[in-house]
Amino acid sequence: MAATAALFIALAPSVQAVWPMPSEYHDGKIGVEIKRSGFMIKSNVTSSSVLNAAIERYQYLIEHEFFDSPYNFNEGALKTSGYIYSLQVDVQSAQDVLDLETDESYILEVPIEGKAALSAKTPFGAVRGLETFSQLIMANSGRKTIKNAPIRIVDAPKFTHRGILLDTSRNFYHVDSILRTLDAMSYNKLNVLHWHVVDAFSWPIESKVHPELTEKGTYSMDMRYSYQDVKKIINYAKNRAIRIMPEFNMPANTFVIGEAHPEIMSCLNKQPNWDKYAVEPPSGQLNIADPRAVSFAFDIITEYSRLFIDLGFHIGGNSINMDCWKEDPVIELYVRDHPGESVESLAVGWFMQMVGKLADMGKIPFLYEEPVLNFNYTSKNTTIMQAWVGEDSVGKLVDKGYRVIASPWNRYRLDCGHGSWLSNFEGSSWCDPYKGWQQIYSYDPLANITEPEKRKLVLGGEVALFSAQSDETTIDRYLWPRASAFAEIMWSGNFDPIMNATRDAAKVAPRLTDQRFRMVARGIMAEPLQPLWCIRYPEACAHPTAAS
Amino acid sequence: MAATAALFIALAPSVQAVWPMPSEYHDGKIGVEIKRSGFMIKSNVTSSSVLNAAIERYQYLIEHEFFDSPYNFNEGALKTSGYIYSLQVDVQSAQDVLDLETDESYILEVPIEGKAALSAKTPFGAVRGLETFSQLIMANSGRKTIKNAPIRIVDAPKFTHRGILLDTSRNFYHVDSILRTLDAMSYNKLNVLHWHVVDAFSWPIESKVHPELTEKGTYSMDMRYSYQDVKKIINYAKNRAIRIMPEFNMPANTFVIGEAHPEIMSCLNKQPNWDKYAVEPPSGQLNIADPRAVSFAFDIITEYSRLFIDLGFHIGGNSINMDCWKEDPVIELYVRDHPGESVESLAVGWFMQMVGKLADMGKIPFLYEEPVLNFNYTSKNTTIMQAWVGEDSVGKLVDKGYRVIASPWNRYRLDCGHGSWLSNFEGSSWCDPYKGWQQIYSYDPLANITEPEKRKLVLGGEVALFSAQSDETTIDRYLWPRASAFAEIMWSGNFDPIMNATRDAAKVAPRLTDQRFRMVARGIMAEPLQPLWCIRYPEACAHPTAAS
Repeated sequence: MAATAALFIALAPSVQAVWPMPSEYHDGKIGVEIKRSGFMIKSNVTSSSVLNAAIERYQYLIEHEFFDSPYNFNEGALKTSGYIYSLQVDVQSAQDVLDLETDESYILEVPIEGKAALSAKTPFGAVRGLETFSQLIMANSGRKTIKNAPIRIVDAPKFTHRGILLDTSRNFYHVDSILRTLDAMSYNKLNVLHWHVVDAFSWPIESKVHPELTEKGTYSMDMRYSYQDVKKIINYAKNRAIRIMPEFNMPANTFVIGEAHPEIMSCLNKQPNWDKYAVEPPSGQLNIADPRAVSFAFDIITEYSRLFIDLGFHIGGNSINMDCWKEDPVIELYVRDHPGESVESLAVGWFMQMVGKLADMGKIPFLYEEPVLNFNYTSKNTTIMQAWVGEDSVGKLVDKGYRVIASPWNRYRLDCGHGSWLSNFEGSSWCDPYKGWQQIYSYDPLANITEPEKRKLVLGGEVALFSAQSDETTIDRYLWPRASAFAEIMWSGNFDPIMNATRDAAKVAPRLTDQRFRMVARGIMAEPLQPLWCIRYPEACAHPTAAS
Repeated sequence: MAATAALFIALAPSVQAVWPMPSEYHDGKIGVEIKRSGFMIKSNVTSSSVLNAAIERYQYLIEHEFFDSPYNFNEGALKTSGYIYSLQVDVQSAQDVLDLETDESYILEVPIEGKAALSAKTPFGAVRGLETFSQLIMANSGRKTIKNAPIRIVDAPKFTHRGILLDTSRNFYHVDSILRTLDAMSYNKLNVLHWHVVDAFSWPIESKVHPELTEKGTYSMDMRYSYQDVKKIINYAKNRAIRIMPEFNMPANTFVIGEAHPEIMSCLNKQPNWDKYAVEPPSGQLNIADPRAVSFAFDIITEYSRLFIDLGFHIGGNSINMDCWKEDPVIELYVRDHPGESVESLAVGWFMQMVGKLADMGKIPFLYEEPVLNFNYTSKNTTIMQAWVGEDSVGKLVDKGYRVIASPWNRYRLDCGHGSWLSNFEGSSWCDPYKGWQQIYSYDPLANITEPEKRKLVLGGEVALFSAQSDETTIDRYLWPRASAFAEIMWSGNFDPIMNATRDAAKVAPRLTDQRFRMVARGIMAEPLQPLWCIRYPEACAHPTAAS
């Protein structure tokens, strides 16, 4: 009975509700209040438009947000001993250069009275620190307060690539939904939107070189991104320290290209037995033996390399079906007429040409794992590989010397477990079940990689939302707060240095719930994880026989 | 190749996009236009407040809605031959009595010009017909048009109880979310909101008799329903021909009562080994040997029987754990001191008393199946049983002569497949996987019940949303459009009389997608079922090896 009774004492979180957990965190015991009128964020430079925009954004947010954690439902007035009047932001460099190496570190200090201080090497580090500062503030008895001052946070991300993959081809998302997603990413210190722009289903983006793609390939006039839309998204993202990395997935998953150019396609929409040619309908792959297909792909790379200014450019390479090509008469003939060539060698040649083209355009190529792990393609060593098939692909790729983005579907694919989208199929989705936040949080992309040099090759990871059963009505709930769980793994990991152990999920859950409620208050429709009861009695919502 | 090419012709739906499919539908070949200015809905009576409210609502909706089906994305201007100037609604009775026997039939006729006509026996039938009329109208080239006039629809529901169970205890829904859900129900001709008001986690409703329940048992001051809220919800529902049937689940799933009254509870929040005493934490059941518990339950029934004016009153009875009671010292002693009594007989006695009390209050009791199927409880024959454990429970209960509501969890539980809500458990939910619309649509509650007299005992069904992982941010997505799939089964079934076969899912999916888009246009954030591509090429989104 003593154990039971103890559970009824609401447990205070052991640290402030900052999500993701900073890498180094020191706090005190004194409550402080944010001065309501006149609280100002100031900076040492005015020439960084990223920093200026961030200060304006957080000045507004701090003035208008009045968030209280559900943790504190029965808490009285916090005793405060002084006011914080301002936050001074100092950056070492005012240069707004966001790339794969950008420094995002910062140091934040909140005293027990007076001026808080944030220092960073870059404006992007300051963006991260401003977010942390905003999360320290809780509404309490009509005031805005910070618990447990003085606070000193020394913070930097564990991984440099912390991304979300968003598929806008299976179903469409209007620009507003993408901007809102970028907001949510900044609340979780994620820094890459891997924009899976096109896929087999639709071509939702303007093309000036091949306008016929958009004409034939968008779902409706209202469902396409103009150049202006893309530029707006890139700029909005940059102000939040987020890179937009586009993907134009080739040569598989390209049925939609065949709507305009059936002449360069193999196995175009084979029906009803599409399953011999593709993992899902509609089937169709660019005809890799046709020089017109190569030339077309070069056009795509050239056009969109210019529009998307990020250094990274993803050209897909996943889910290739060899039967599709083996049964294509053009390819059959080509292989017969070219001794030494095979469908496999053609595929390898395809990727060599594409990666070469990207190098010419000054881009860093990104590829899914298959060309390297299935076709013995040896990429130029600038290529960054995305491991998505299995957790062990990460290790296989770093063993071959590649830099790797970890996104194993069994942990990081957020659209799974939603039944089949095929009209007449009552079974589950191939990637069943739903990936709970617990499975995401307990996965360490560095697992089983011991050599320090190899560990450095793991740049980070991506959670993925493929959109067969998602569109703008559901995006928030598919992504959040599970992408928040991922974000903490990417930012600081799941290891508790004080406990010298992996964090106890029963303590993580209410912190994550806090973050979820803050996101909801900021307009992100993140889904609930548990009955709200569990934030009162977190230890009581654990499974007795599950691994702790 | 011929088969493939044929798929590229967008397939017109075989009937208008009315959902659920009416039971009898005749149409012609002529397009008509709704007169934009001056279109009026008139009625033969003015004394029904339900009818008046419905006419006002649909007059507004028809004026303001400008919905076009994604089916018609590339369709040109519809040729129309005349205008519809008005809709004349005639009801036989103006009495607003909504109960378990209310007639919802209607006949709707749309001519090729002039006045459309809707006739119904009751105002509630008129509500159904108005919804149908609104769905016939599609935006086309800046006009509002109806295809395929003349139309004659003779319609009535197959089942009288077509419900959604909504749990407001695990997580809270503000009144607005419930009203929006009632709107969505009316768009799908559902007629019962089974309001699972309380459960183990929170007590979100005002009690005038036991205010301590709300005081100790709500999540926050902002998360409770006042008497006024409840009355508002009941009235709003009635205007949409929907009954609000409350459930006060006892004697299990009642931990929250123990927050105020631990003295009448058994096995209250056993930790950490709650799994011996309950299917999920927190454990706790009313102590059935304690007269104070019986008296408390009578108070609850009395108070809420008056507030909720519906004839139906659900008193739960599911998920009882016998160990909880067997190990309770009060119950142990009682059984020892009362020869012939057992924990089972106490449980049977409990339900006898509760059902008796409800009869005294003039209510029709509803119970989950367990008291009858697990405890050999023989209910008074007025009781309506809810079969939720297995599909075969429906047959077992009608064999015993009970009227039954079918809600087998493996078909109708909409919250499943979302991972575990327990903090530290990486496994799936017990009711995994997610129930796709296909599984819902293919289930016939009358399956394997052949005798006509027994088939009549199946009153209908309920899909259920238990809210461990849902709240108002997710309700629309969990319910819709899967509850729409259910609604068609309840309203007219999945049998196509023209094809003389169960409907082909490849033809149902785009119709359901249409209904989903209409709901989204009306503000219900229903989730997408498929890539939008599938509404263009429905036959191409079928699984080749699945049963057709």
